[in-house]
Amino acid sequence: MKEAFDINTIHAAAERLAGKIVHTPLLESALLNEQLGGRVLFKPECLQKTGAFKFRGALNKLSTLSAEQRRSGIVAFSSGNHAQGVAATARDLGIDVKIIMPQDAPALKIANTRAYGATVILYDRYTESREAIGRDLAEREGRTLVKPYDDHDIMAGQGTAGLEIAQSLQAMGVQADALLCPCGGGGLIAGVSTAIKALSPETDVYSVEPEGFEDTQRSLISGERECNATQGGSLCDSIVTPQPGALTFAVNRQTLSGGLVVSEAAVKRAMREAFIHLKLVVEPGGVVGLAALLTGEYPIQGKTVVVLLSGGNVDMATFLACCHEV
Amino acid sequence: MKEAFDINTIHAAAERLAGKIVHTPLLESALLNEQLGGRVLFKPECLQKTGAFKFRGALNKLSTLSAEQRRSGIVAFSSGNHAQGVAATARDLGIDVKIIMPQDAPALKIANTRAYGATVILYDRYTESREAIGRDLAEREGRTLVKPYDDHDIMAGQGTAGLEIAQSLQAMGVQADALLCPCGGGGLIAGVSTAIKALSPETDVYSVEPEGFEDTQRSLISGERECNATQGGSLCDSIVTPQPGALTFAVNRQTLSGGLVVSEAAVKRAMREAFIHLKLVVEPGGVVGLAALLTGEYPIQGKTVVVLLSGGNVDMATFLACCHEV
Repeated sequence: MKEAFDINTIHAAAERLAGKIVHTPLLESALLNEQLGGRVLFKPECLQKTGAFKFRGALNKLSTLSAEQRRSGIVAFSSGNHAQGVAATARDLGIDVKIIMPQDAPALKIANTRAYGATVILYDRYTESREAIGRDLAEREGRTLVKPYDDHDIMAGQGTAGLEIAQSLQAMGVQADALLCPCGGGGLIAGVSTAIKALSPETDVYSVEPEGFEDTQRSLISGERECNATQGGSLCDSIVTPQPGALTFAVNRQTLSGGLVVSEAAVKRAMREAFIHLKLVVEPGGVVGLAALLTGEYPIQGKTVVVLLSGGNVDMATFLACCHEV
Repeated sequence: MKEAFDINTIHAAAERLAGKIVHTPLLESALLNEQLGGRVLFKPECLQKTGAFKFRGALNKLSTLSAEQRRSGIVAFSSGNHAQGVAATARDLGIDVKIIMPQDAPALKIANTRAYGATVILYDRYTESREAIGRDLAEREGRTLVKPYDDHDIMAGQGTAGLEIAQSLQAMGVQADALLCPCGGGGLIAGVSTAIKALSPETDVYSVEPEGFEDTQRSLISGERECNATQGGSLCDSIVTPQPGALTFAVNRQTLSGGLVVSEAAVKRAMREAFIHLKLVVEPGGVVGLAALLTGEYPIQGKTVVVLLSGGNVDMATFLACCHEV
């Protein structure tokens, strides 16, 4: 029997997470609105615990593990934000955790994952398969594999951000024309779009990806799960994945209105605008939604758009270089 | 008859501001808590509209003006954050506004104040009196003077931040040992401490000031309103004032447990820690509370402390220089 994934799955996750996550507000800047000619409401998940939305899914997933599974430990693979979310949650729950991370992940992400008490195993993203290393460790050591996105409990946890957005919009009496969401493997946007389609059906949801890693955009067009040509080399480290997940794409092909693509130059400009107008540190992969507005990839004139800022875990040196360059 | 200023004044302001300001959340970082050996809950008013708490007081004050006063226009003097708060609010309410700002104010603050539609008048803070220029303009043009802090309506508006802190603590079931708050003229801390003493009396409230501008600390000791030796030259531009206000000090001498002082080096370190652990851009004068924890000026070991981050309006160049230098 196929497991159901719908708004009730997300409501259940929200109950599990209540009081344990940051209910991030919707923020806006009058000056940025003027500059863009529309209204933008930002959902700053860079302010979430561990600096990214990933804490939501990790906590929801780990909360569902049995006592036996918790005793046996877990293993996860991640480009960095899922790593921190899982490591912080596992520590709070007293679960032993090993995390497989690319050796070229931002230093801050690796350092923080270790600081939360996880054992970090580095791999080469061009020659090794993190999925294979993860499965192998899970089998040999009896650990539960906590996938970064292709898992209904993870997707539901991330979806609580969408639930909060819908609730905030309702409290403000605002209808949003669109929601722009960063997309790697598609777990965040699968959960968020499921919540939005249920509670704010008039809002179109779009994935946003960096040039060269627009697997979801191409998959939405072809109807098949398309692959990216390369596995790394993007400034947007947090949303580079080989292809859409099976479970996530099954949702996203039904909920999304399309896929948007942005350049690295636009991402840098967006980081700077977030600094100036929002007082937020947003990592490159987290700010792609704003980048899509700045370039006109999504024409915002006269519209109200929600932009999800997914994380803020960027090395100081990278941040400074991005802000200097613009 | 002496006008009363108490928790009811702040409750009335909160009703006036409901739905028009950002209810900023309390944020914390597990890794920063570990580093400090205590628990810190941050109130990020850099995320408030116009990038600082000042929007609260400005909106409360301007909401109380009569139709006649609104038609005649207003004038304000400010180092930059009150300027932006007043300018943005005045525009929303259709009030003509002139703002007197020091010519060495951060470029971002001057540019934003103009962008909100205000007429900006620059003055030399070493040779001219902004109070005199303001009074003169008010008399000659029939404008209402909107003071930056020494006004009960302004203090009450800022105090809504303290009301929110008390409500958040209660919702979390947390008792805070102390609250550290940036202090210039003392309007913010007068409002905040009044709310905290009414709703969370076990929490000690401390002012935090930069070295050389610790007029409130010295005034709390002497019982008189002491003056600073100089009017400028601090990195912490937003909290440099000649002396405590008359109305604000009348409150603060009763509500505050003492005054803390921090160096510019500590302020720069605090800006960097806020970047790394909170993903927030905080201006030098806004981050002094965290600086006091980093240096041990307030010993946090084993305690729970609320740190109010009052604003984020810092020029990119200054921010980059501060982060580089550490």
